[in-house]
Amino acid sequence: MKIRLYNARILSMKDGEDIFFGEIHVDGNRISFAGKSEDAPSGISFDKEIDCGGNVLMPGFKNCHTHSGMTAFRSLADNLNLQDWLNNEIFPREAKMSGEDCYWLTKLAILEYLTSGVTAIEDMYLTPETIADACIEMGMRCELVSGLNKFGPTLEVLEERYNKLNDKHPLIGFKMGLHAEYTCDEELLKNTAKLIAKYKAPMYVHMSETKTEVDECIGRYGITPVALFDKLGLFDYGGVIYHGVWTTPEDREILKKRGVMVVSNPASNAKLASGIAPITDYLKEGIVVALGTDGPSSNNCLDMFREMYLVSALGKIREMDPLAVPATEVIKMATVNGSKTLEHSDTDILAKGKLADIIMIDLHQPNMQPILNIPNNIVYSGSKTNVKMTMIDGRILYYDGAFTDADVDEIYAKAEEIMQRLR
Amino acid sequence: MKIRLYNARILSMKDGEDIFFGEIHVDGNRISFAGKSEDAPSGISFDKEIDCGGNVLMPGFKNCHTHSGMTAFRSLADNLNLQDWLNNEIFPREAKMSGEDCYWLTKLAILEYLTSGVTAIEDMYLTPETIADACIEMGMRCELVSGLNKFGPTLEVLEERYNKLNDKHPLIGFKMGLHAEYTCDEELLKNTAKLIAKYKAPMYVHMSETKTEVDECIGRYGITPVALFDKLGLFDYGGVIYHGVWTTPEDREILKKRGVMVVSNPASNAKLASGIAPITDYLKEGIVVALGTDGPSSNNCLDMFREMYLVSALGKIREMDPLAVPATEVIKMATVNGSKTLEHSDTDILAKGKLADIIMIDLHQPNMQPILNIPNNIVYSGSKTNVKMTMIDGRILYYDGAFTDADVDEIYAKAEEIMQRLR
Repeated sequence: MKIRLYNARILSMKDGEDIFFGEIHVDGNRISFAGKSEDAPSGISFDKEIDCGGNVLMPGFKNCHTHSGMTAFRSLADNLNLQDWLNNEIFPREAKMSGEDCYWLTKLAILEYLTSGVTAIEDMYLTPETIADACIEMGMRCELVSGLNKFGPTLEVLEERYNKLNDKHPLIGFKMGLHAEYTCDEELLKNTAKLIAKYKAPMYVHMSETKTEVDECIGRYGITPVALFDKLGLFDYGGVIYHGVWTTPEDREILKKRGVMVVSNPASNAKLASGIAPITDYLKEGIVVALGTDGPSSNNCLDMFREMYLVSALGKIREMDPLAVPATEVIKMATVNGSKTLEHSDTDILAKGKLADIIMIDLHQPNMQPILNIPNNIVYSGSKTNVKMTMIDGRILYYDGAFTDADVDEIYAKAEEIMQRLR
Repeated sequence: MKIRLYNARILSMKDGEDIFFGEIHVDGNRISFAGKSEDAPSGISFDKEIDCGGNVLMPGFKNCHTHSGMTAFRSLADNLNLQDWLNNEIFPREAKMSGEDCYWLTKLAILEYLTSGVTAIEDMYLTPETIADACIEMGMRCELVSGLNKFGPTLEVLEERYNKLNDKHPLIGFKMGLHAEYTCDEELLKNTAKLIAKYKAPMYVHMSETKTEVDECIGRYGITPVALFDKLGLFDYGGVIYHGVWTTPEDREILKKRGVMVVSNPASNAKLASGIAPITDYLKEGIVVALGTDGPSSNNCLDMFREMYLVSALGKIREMDPLAVPATEVIKMATVNGSKTLEHSDTDILAKGKLADIIMIDLHQPNMQPILNIPNNIVYSGSKTNVKMTMIDGRILYYDGAFTDADVDEIYAKAEEIMQRLR
């Protein structure tokens, strides 16, 4: 399939490249041209030509931390702190959730990702195999992340999944990960470090989300979670920490030294009253920050516009400085930096040879008018109503408010039935 | 015009009434029936019958603090603190803005309000007469608020507007107000108090927005802005303070005693790094809290879903308590309490005899599925994509993403031209 997207403002996210008027050609799942129309190759016979009407084409948003299958629990158990919410409301219900449940609930989440311009996710949830199936069927790019902990499964299962799921499908990858320090014992941490070393794999883990979590780790080991993982060799090949709200300056030194990145989830951290992450400090240290929605039970929605606005607005509040966490940095977090945490070197910018994970931002909406500063408009004023197209791997999956290839009513009905059973 | 809205979930916001399945009849600009279908009067010949498909009907959102005409400055001067932003970026440009500019820029804002389910606004901006024209032509309900200060206009103009604009049109009202303590001198404050007394009118004013503002007022008068206005008699007939971020316990005693209400603007307060308002304290004291977007240059969008989410999320962060500012309180702020600050006793709930300011919330979107707790879904997960209909005064002004009676392209073109001239 050859697609031409023309008459567009192109926000390529290539370093130092300003927004320009031009067009993009997609051939199969890759970009074959991105530039000014006068430089475009001619004589190509396209299957589809789309007049973008001056709207913006940019790389899709990367939602780098989510638990998609938690859609069943949206608005089920709000107004609780993290510990009560997990232990009393979530874990008991998750114990009753089947792989098929997870498959349908992930499909529901994918619909929402598409409305929000999300073209890749990092998903840590119960049954990676059925999550992969849902993603492949719906065309979503996904890195599955192991959430191994002392309650299950086993390191053997982790290793098997790592080998199997990384080879399953071009849209799917699998990352070595642990749920969190507080759900693992020392033996499991040490054995995981051996596996990490065997595969030279980066480590993905919930870390420094709440003050309690950090304090309890210090109580157990005498050091912070970041220092502990470093000491045990779990960060020897880099990695990603989810949240990073309560890191110390010493923690940040370690993250920097080890090339560990941070995925910030400002909406979840606010709603669960976990705190505001020190984004300004991360930026100062050159630590890569990406964004995630976290799961739809703690957020409660899967909206990258909310995360972009919040990471900036909360950063300004935290520092009491309106210059903190500016829009240009935020757009980078949601795109280029997201690709880094996913280890997807081909989805970061719009350029020839890159994968065609492209979104179109509708400027013909009152919240984008007048057109004065597009990145600021997107971060400070943007909303899901501005997502006119979501294309993943060269396929248009969402256009003008409609899903092009999904049985929406079936997905809603299944999710409703599962929610009734688990509530 | 007689309209029947049936097959709906009705969130009437009537005290103690749960969501129920039923229908609403609109006759002219008022609700003639709101209840279960079996109780509905029969034999009526409707001009229009709308199958709501199980979606939610609820009172429209009230945006109780805005400066609509600032749409020209969206994304013009971001990442600044309030004082620099006002003095260096905004005031010089506003000096060049004409009444006609303000008319078109207000129209642009109204488009955005309609997409966000806003059915009434409280607008403090330069030329109330042309703002009124824009609102009347587009069908928006509006209370114009005087922003008088020592730079203009005069108390005579204020009084004339009060008498003239309150009689102009059923959609339009005018409130006595001052811009802020820091832009008025003592003489103006005292003279305004006399006018307030003459008309027994409530006072509307920006107050306690930043710490600097409060500190400087203490420097000038030895007391906080709230205490000063109370002392001068400016709150003798109640009123509304916009922002109320930095009130003291003594201030809150005064607000309570005088029946002064607070309009919170969490997005603006965050983006300008002004701080987080003590919403929990207001709720504890029984002080009425409503919500506003503030102007589109400090926010930068006019989205009540953002405000609803933020007032709750920031409240939780401020108190480090996930139980703070729950969704049920927030929905009340955005509807019933908004009507109180507007002094619109007929737009607060959906019931027979009330004005037909009604919105339809689309549940057939992934972010509203599954349907477990509708108020929580709206506050924690809702977005402009969920606004399927906005009706004001019995007229459907926005439906399924389209404006039914507005020349959108003309408005965009005018706003663009004005922005180019003023930038």
